[in-house]
Amino acid sequence: MCRWLAYTGEPLQASTVILDAQHSLVAQSLDSPLGNETVNGDGFGFGWYPENAHAGDAPAFFRSIEPAWNDQNLRELTRSVRSPLFFSHVRAAAGPPIQQTNCHPFRHQNWMFMHNGFLDGFAKMKRDLTFAVDPSLYPAILGTTDSEVLFNLALTFGLTDDPIAAMGEAIRMVEAVGRERGIAFPMQGTLAVTDGVTVWAFRYSSQGRTRTLFHSVDVDTVREMYPGAERLKLFGSRARLIVSEPLNNLPGVFNAVPESTVAVVDASGYHHEPFLAPND
Amino acid sequence: MCRWLAYTGEPLQASTVILDAQHSLVAQSLDSPLGNETVNGDGFGFGWYPENAHAGDAPAFFRSIEPAWNDQNLRELTRSVRSPLFFSHVRAAAGPPIQQTNCHPFRHQNWMFMHNGFLDGFAKMKRDLTFAVDPSLYPAILGTTDSEVLFNLALTFGLTDDPIAAMGEAIRMVEAVGRERGIAFPMQGTLAVTDGVTVWAFRYSSQGRTRTLFHSVDVDTVREMYPGAERLKLFGSRARLIVSEPLNNLPGVFNAVPESTVAVVDASGYHHEPFLAPND
Amino acid sequence: MCRWLAYTGEPLQASTVILDAQHSLVAQSLDSPLGNETVNGDGFGFGWYPENAHAGDAPAFFRSIEPAWNDQNLRELTRSVRSPLFFSHVRAAAGPPIQQTNCHPFRHQNWMFMHNGFLDGFAKMKRDLTFAVDPSLYPAILGTTDSEVLFNLALTFGLTDDPIAAMGEAIRMVEAVGRERGIAFPMQGTLAVTDGVTVWAFRYSSQGRTRTLFHSVDVDTVREMYPGAERLKLFGSRARLIVSEPLNNLPGVFNAVPESTVAVVDASGYHHEPFLAPND
Amino acid sequence: MCRWLAYTGEPLQASTVILDAQHSLVAQSLDSPLGNETVNGDGFGFGWYPENAHAGDAPAFFRSIEPAWNDQNLRELTRSVRSPLFFSHVRAAAGPPIQQTNCHPFRHQNWMFMHNGFLDGFAKMKRDLTFAVDPSLYPAILGTTDSEVLFNLALTFGLTDDPIAAMGEAIRMVEAVGRERGIAFPMQGTLAVTDGVTVWAFRYSSQGRTRTLFHSVDVDTVREMYPGAERLKLFGSRARLIVSEPLNNLPGVFNAVPESTVAVVDASGYHHEPFLAPND
Repeated sequence: MCRWLAYTGEPLQASTVILDAQHSLVAQSLDSPLGNETVNGDGFGFGWYPENAHAGDAPAFFRSIEPAWNDQNLRELTRSVRSPLFFSHVRAAAGPPIQQTNCHPFRHQNWMFMHNGFLDGFAKMKRDLTFAVDPSLYPAILGTTDSEVLFNLALTFGLTDDPIAAMGEAIRMVEAVGRERGIAFPMQGTLAVTDGVTVWAFRYSSQGRTRTLFHSVDVDTVREMYPGAERLKLFGSRARLIVSEPLNNLPGVFNAVPESTVAVVDASGYHHEPFLAPND
Repeated sequence: MCRWLAYTGEPLQASTVILDAQHSLVAQSLDSPLGNETVNGDGFGFGWYPENAHAGDAPAFFRSIEPAWNDQNLRELTRSVRSPLFFSHVRAAAGPPIQQTNCHPFRHQNWMFMHNGFLDGFAKMKRDLTFAVDPSLYPAILGTTDSEVLFNLALTFGLTDDPIAAMGEAIRMVEAVGRERGIAFPMQGTLAVTDGVTVWAFRYSSQGRTRTLFHSVDVDTVREMYPGAERLKLFGSRARLIVSEPLNNLPGVFNAVPESTVAVVDASGYHHEPFLAPND
Repeated sequence: MCRWLAYTGEPLQASTVILDAQHSLVAQSLDSPLGNETVNGDGFGFGWYPENAHAGDAPAFFRSIEPAWNDQNLRELTRSVRSPLFFSHVRAAAGPPIQQTNCHPFRHQNWMFMHNGFLDGFAKMKRDLTFAVDPSLYPAILGTTDSEVLFNLALTFGLTDDPIAAMGEAIRMVEAVGRERGIAFPMQGTLAVTDGVTVWAFRYSSQGRTRTLFHSVDVDTVREMYPGAERLKLFGSRARLIVSEPLNNLPGVFNAVPESTVAVVDASGYHHEPFLAPND
Repeated sequence: MCRWLAYTGEPLQASTVILDAQHSLVAQSLDSPLGNETVNGDGFGFGWYPENAHAGDAPAFFRSIEPAWNDQNLRELTRSVRSPLFFSHVRAAAGPPIQQTNCHPFRHQNWMFMHNGFLDGFAKMKRDLTFAVDPSLYPAILGTTDSEVLFNLALTFGLTDDPIAAMGEAIRMVEAVGRERGIAFPMQGTLAVTDGVTVWAFRYSSQGRTRTLFHSVDVDTVREMYPGAERLKLFGSRARLIVSEPLNNLPGVFNAVPESTVAVVDASGYHHEPFLAPND
């Protein structure tokens, strides 16, 4: 339904990947080659940990209901911000209204979250799922998307202690409630969550046919593959991207994250592991 | 928290009272003499039954997050629309975000509703009140205001069958839940509701110190009081207004609606009766 | 750069062609099969003469910078408005900022105007063309588009007296100034102008390769071609549309307006004639 | 017509003065004690030189048409940005439309400019003044305010070489053109301009009755006056503010800039000198 990217590594001028790549996130907002929707023009968000932030600080947010492709503020801001970890998201609304409170990412203390996909038949599940959110979190639900409810369910199940287990539990609850309501495949999507240090990116759908997700290959390896690539000088050796679709057409730079997988990126690098796999 | 007006009578060019009166609703948005907040610049709404609508048709809506005072579309629209019954509202937000889904009026089938005031301590009551809404209505709650929850509670209690009883029951529930949470005066405000034929306007607060509410005097009576008033020619004999504050300074044109009262206006004229009065 | 439609005939609920056709204007905003740009998401406008307007009354306007496809107000408004003559336009910006004052149509007294296309190399011509506008019109230029300057040039050359001659003179001036600046093909586009009674629609480009333009065939003829078409019952016998691209895929319903042609539609029907043709 | 502030000194979290002071700029947007208009709700702007910018870099901009008081993005951004020199402005529109291109500050290369006030009778002067702008600057005029034309006139007269002389020449031209048109007092306002190193702030009106302007007193001096003031710890010794009105009620912290004066602030401190004074 949407497109997103997550960056972590040496502090990077955010526009490098949001504005200036061949298939930058803003380019994808107008024309997404791999997206289920071609146009993602129903608002956007950018959440970043400032370069000099302290551990545990909340990320800063810029969210708008304008299409990303012509938003002057997004251009100005991503050109002036350098950040060691940021999320950005362009939205193709599937029902919930176009308003800032429905733009991703969402935030809880020093955590942030975003989603590409949907809970199928959400109207039938919304009340039960919302009721299952911890009452202390309930008043902080400001928008009306399925994604924000899913984030709050994961928080309810302990996201800040064990993100992989909590996200799994939240999705299992969505599937249980959905199937009670006769929904064949309640969960669809790729999810990203971070505490400001580590990024967890999930690719999972009840049907096993999930929206695409890619991770960038180690930058030094890419430099060897493309020794003449000027643009690579913009990136440090620890730079990592997780993206809905590759930011360029260069073979070997982005690899697919498999189905039913969680990718984990931090200062030590990238690895992934099974997540809610069929034989779990 | 806000200012509103309700008009019923012969079809009227809506700008006559929304834009062009001495203290028109748009003038009040920038400077409200009697308001608890001087500025009501956090969006607005206009809901109208078109001149040639059929009985039971839903009203049309125009809602925006821009301040009313400089909104060109509101000017264009209210100058081109003639309507026998319309509501308009300017908002001073007390917390919930500035978004179209939080702008009044709200709508259910052929009914619409608006509110000036607040549920005190709403964050403490929101979950209980929202889950008391009928599950069939729950998915239609699109915004995050106390007012929309109150409207849906009243719908749950039978607003479309007996508006006065249902609104009373909804407010009594708010007061019961609020007092459980230690809130001294949970309900504050003036409310308007209509089915497209009759307007019910309520003035009530738990503390007995409610925001102001006024109704216009019979137009023919006003004509006798002010025989030279050119502006009165714009109004038919059945024209009636219910307003947060008088649209002009002429003595005798607007009378206060008393505390703990519901005013009822339809083709037969105006009357009012006690509503949740202390000795009810 | 954009898509537009013009309707004239019996008063019609505007949503019939703006929202509800197979390739309605709003559908074209998200996906335009024949457009030079697929997406027309940079604002929109709707200008209409109200059903009961008097001769010489100015049209009413609703313009917004939101994409048309998810704009709730456009849906509400076009469903409630019936009009005997209206214009609507969705924009794909080619440089000038996304702001209401750059949304088409534009207006002068009872006249309105819209444009799909561009003045090539406008930045090089803007100053000369703008200062050629009559000084009495100059302060009314509120936006920064090439289209609004072209409209004001045509007004300067007598649009309200002789629309075809004045538009021709304005375009000839654009071409003269452009060629002085070394611009090969200064003028590109389809234009619509109306006084509230007659619609003139121009298809012309300096290169002779103009954006598409179509006109609907006589409704009674279409009824004979498609006797079972329920949807035709919504239209009166005098209904006429001029559109950037056909609103449906039915053969024979829309015919192309030729290159270098002005189409004229009024109560007596449709005709067209050469406009700035090569041998003019 | 507006309110503005300019900060220069040690890098400061921008929210310190834009959001968090007793009469912060955002507080003034809703209620300006000294303003000619109480409400400044017609958009705002924030322009800043990033903490690690290089000499000659252009400032970054965030401008919006929402009222400042409830804009979430402004809160997020000014809390995350630290800057050694920034401008911020809240607008009360006096005619020109509410659009980002009419929000202050305006920018040319590494320079920025803002204005509180107006050119009286601007519609009568606009064409002549705009025509007097250097043709190379003309295409960069994106909005429709008097302020942007004044800035471009000053640029035409050499602002980047000698700001005080060029601003004086621009104002003298405004007065000459205005008086030809029968306008008694063409120029009104306070102006700020900077190249990223020095701030020049002008207080001048043709009538000699100019909008208020204040400058902060040396911070170390203020610390001696108010030894217990915790808030002063947020400011470095070189911190200087120029403001439309004082940010707090503490006597002695802000001093008025006299009529017909230009204040100059840079790393060496504050001084002022006569500007277009009657006996100039």
